[in-house]
Amino acid sequence: MNFSVILYLLGNVLLLEGVLMLLPCVTALIYREPQGVIYLLVALLCALLGYFLRRGRSQKLIFYAKEGFVAVGLSWIVLSLAGAIPFVLTGEIPSYTDALFETISGFTTTGASILRDVEALSHVSLLWRSFTHWIGGMGVIVFLLALLPASGGYNMNLMRAESPGPQVGKLVPKVSETAKILYSIYMFITVLEIVVLIVAGMPVFDALCISFGSAGTGGFGVLNDSCASYAPHLQWIITLFIILFGVNFNAYYYLLRSKNKKEAFQIEEVRVYFAVILLSVIFISFNIRSFFATYSEALRHSAFQVGSIITTTGFATTDFNLWPNFSKTILVLLMFVGACAGSTGGGIKVSRIIIFNRTVQAEVRRFIHNRSVEMVRMDGKSLDQDTVRSVSVYLVAYVLIFVASVFLLSLTGTDLVTDFTAVAATLNNIGPGLNAVGPTGNYADMSLIAKYVLMFDMLAGRLELFPMLLLVVPATYRKN
Amino acid sequence: MNFSVILYLLGNVLLLEGVLMLLPCVTALIYREPQGVIYLLVALLCALLGYFLRRGRSQKLIFYAKEGFVAVGLSWIVLSLAGAIPFVLTGEIPSYTDALFETISGFTTTGASILRDVEALSHVSLLWRSFTHWIGGMGVIVFLLALLPASGGYNMNLMRAESPGPQVGKLVPKVSETAKILYSIYMFITVLEIVVLIVAGMPVFDALCISFGSAGTGGFGVLNDSCASYAPHLQWIITLFIILFGVNFNAYYYLLRSKNKKEAFQIEEVRVYFAVILLSVIFISFNIRSFFATYSEALRHSAFQVGSIITTTGFATTDFNLWPNFSKTILVLLMFVGACAGSTGGGIKVSRIIIFNRTVQAEVRRFIHNRSVEMVRMDGKSLDQDTVRSVSVYLVAYVLIFVASVFLLSLTGTDLVTDFTAVAATLNNIGPGLNAVGPTGNYADMSLIAKYVLMFDMLAGRLELFPMLLLVVPATYRKN
Repeated sequence: MNFSVILYLLGNVLLLEGVLMLLPCVTALIYREPQGVIYLLVALLCALLGYFLRRGRSQKLIFYAKEGFVAVGLSWIVLSLAGAIPFVLTGEIPSYTDALFETISGFTTTGASILRDVEALSHVSLLWRSFTHWIGGMGVIVFLLALLPASGGYNMNLMRAESPGPQVGKLVPKVSETAKILYSIYMFITVLEIVVLIVAGMPVFDALCISFGSAGTGGFGVLNDSCASYAPHLQWIITLFIILFGVNFNAYYYLLRSKNKKEAFQIEEVRVYFAVILLSVIFISFNIRSFFATYSEALRHSAFQVGSIITTTGFATTDFNLWPNFSKTILVLLMFVGACAGSTGGGIKVSRIIIFNRTVQAEVRRFIHNRSVEMVRMDGKSLDQDTVRSVSVYLVAYVLIFVASVFLLSLTGTDLVTDFTAVAATLNNIGPGLNAVGPTGNYADMSLIAKYVLMFDMLAGRLELFPMLLLVVPATYRKN
Repeated sequence: MNFSVILYLLGNVLLLEGVLMLLPCVTALIYREPQGVIYLLVALLCALLGYFLRRGRSQKLIFYAKEGFVAVGLSWIVLSLAGAIPFVLTGEIPSYTDALFETISGFTTTGASILRDVEALSHVSLLWRSFTHWIGGMGVIVFLLALLPASGGYNMNLMRAESPGPQVGKLVPKVSETAKILYSIYMFITVLEIVVLIVAGMPVFDALCISFGSAGTGGFGVLNDSCASYAPHLQWIITLFIILFGVNFNAYYYLLRSKNKKEAFQIEEVRVYFAVILLSVIFISFNIRSFFATYSEALRHSAFQVGSIITTTGFATTDFNLWPNFSKTILVLLMFVGACAGSTGGGIKVSRIIIFNRTVQAEVRRFIHNRSVEMVRMDGKSLDQDTVRSVSVYLVAYVLIFVASVFLLSLTGTDLVTDFTAVAATLNNIGPGLNAVGPTGNYADMSLIAKYVLMFDMLAGRLELFPMLLLVVPATYRKN
């Protein structure tokens, strides 16, 4: 393993984090909050440490698959370890475990919180908390790839390790160009949401935080009731944007650059994504009709919750834990489906669900036609066997991590539904689950073991399992 | 599709069922129960119908993969449709849906019941109910293969469709010989259990029914409290036998015939199976210690429930729904693990779980060593890529059927845990789940939709998904 190249990347990550932490410092200036000094100090420390780590840069900046995966996994851990420090130093989250949980939940865009009273936090901490969603949403390594000097095709291994989805494609031949395009689109839609929310009457601070949260499909809000007390039209705006952030960004690229703009609407994953949302909203609206005064209210809550859950954002406008069994079941299933690949959303991803279905269909056809291989097609093309295989293996790994996590949680947990949905909510980067970790509950009362297991799950979910698995198997550190 | 060859098989199945139904008739004679006449009439009808269907035998008795899977799926449905009739005609289960549920539950060795009061049943019906477990345990087609004239290698497609496990191997070159060996072992251990139970003091009728239930790893008992009121030493005997019936029958064959008897103890699946049982029993014993007066009592209940659940038998000596979260979680996980391949037990099968683990390990090694393929090994040999692939695809299909079932149940269900564990308990052929379908509950109150979905799941679980999937996809019936 080439450690110097990994340290170089970690240095860059810390340096970047130091720079990004200046944004909360600005917030502190505006609101004249003394906590800003702490953020400034931590920012400087991160930058300094990062600067020195960068200096050990080796000659060859080559990331093979192993180094790429390990470097990305470690980057996210280092990012979280440092990002949690201000919460502890300001005294707003005294326990470092809890602060780390909150920060990992932020960067992985999970939105699971250990805070009982969000409104007690200072503005600077609230902003940092939401900003972590935005940083984690499109990926910190992708951000770096957009900034760092290009160094051959090996950067693809970094991008692949951080980007969600079964097939990580480059929009353009150069990785750094692809990263720049992705971040430009990301930034544009985020700014658009901020502006629209402010124009529609939301306080500027809330508009910033909510937009960061929806852009990264995170879920940290600034109010204790998440989004329940915002005006109905604001809730509709948020619904629209979270659904847009769950779309495969390739679609936006096609819309912007491609000569044939129709391509954007022909991506099968995007079509299925919208179809699933539409059907779920209709089903749930009818099912919860009697819970609300008017049909439009039922529709609004249905649309918000469906959008929030399928994109794995985790905002809520109402306590869906109280909804009837049918609606709750749909939401739990959507938790696993997740958003599109190549979006900021988590979960298993719509494209994988499509491939799962087609894999089983192909297997059935194998028996019917007595053939040894049947092709799996998507977007009009046959997928190569390796992609199909790795998608199935992804599910196997997913189930094993899921089962192991539920087992570990049961050591200290109290009920199966809480344990099961807590793992589902973290491994899929959603945030709220059901029962004790439902939309009105939080993760504060979980045991220490449970919190660390769930932190692992959040990272594993965000990085699509294998970078975190590589970090914990001894074989990674053995010499070949 | 060659329908005549399928009809020929269905005829044989009905003829065999008619013959097997004579056993309850004998019971009726002994207990002088008038219901025996109904069983006799149905038996004659089955035999007659079967005889006529057999006459349409085509020249070529060739089962290609498609015909094999469809024929086996239909056989099990026809078997159940006919087997349910006596329950309705005797008036003991007035609703045909309920009778069919009970019969499918019997043949698939699930043991899920819609009866509130088992003890109200006549002896003849109780015996038939338990006997269905025994018939379904090793498989009705395997039984036929042992009896029917050999007809080339194509019978392997029938055996493959009915036998559980990722690799259906022939013990000896001839399929019919393999079938005979399997049934001989099966019958021998069953008779051994009957004798041991009688000698140990169990009433003869109970000994017969309980032995049929444990041999097929079914779970229908003759008492309302399942096995709770049997003496402790009888419970230990049952525990021992259900665990033995969950062992891969290859192990017994090696013990009997192989020159190197050590081979039996070297099968990895068997080792892992016993290790999982041992660890689970130890963990649960400590966890439930305070629920019972003595340590030996806790150990006995722990061993019984673990054996009963991992082999997917479903007998119970106590209401584990009341156990602490940790023990319940272990039992729920064991529900999915299931017994060994090549045993009479259900579930995902221990060998598949082993292959799942190794598949993920191989995937991790792929990243570490930057290779395109890494081998998955079991029992000291590399598995061929096709087996590894099909095991992963099995999990994909399993998850999809599971999710679809939970969704359909939620349309009329009341709570997620009941729906979820009802599907788990039927798809894995266990019987009892948690909450409303826990060891003290039953499936009587489920809706009509739910009952039919669960019937499908029981058949899909027993036949390892694909025969039932082939039956419901239009492609099967399309002309090539």
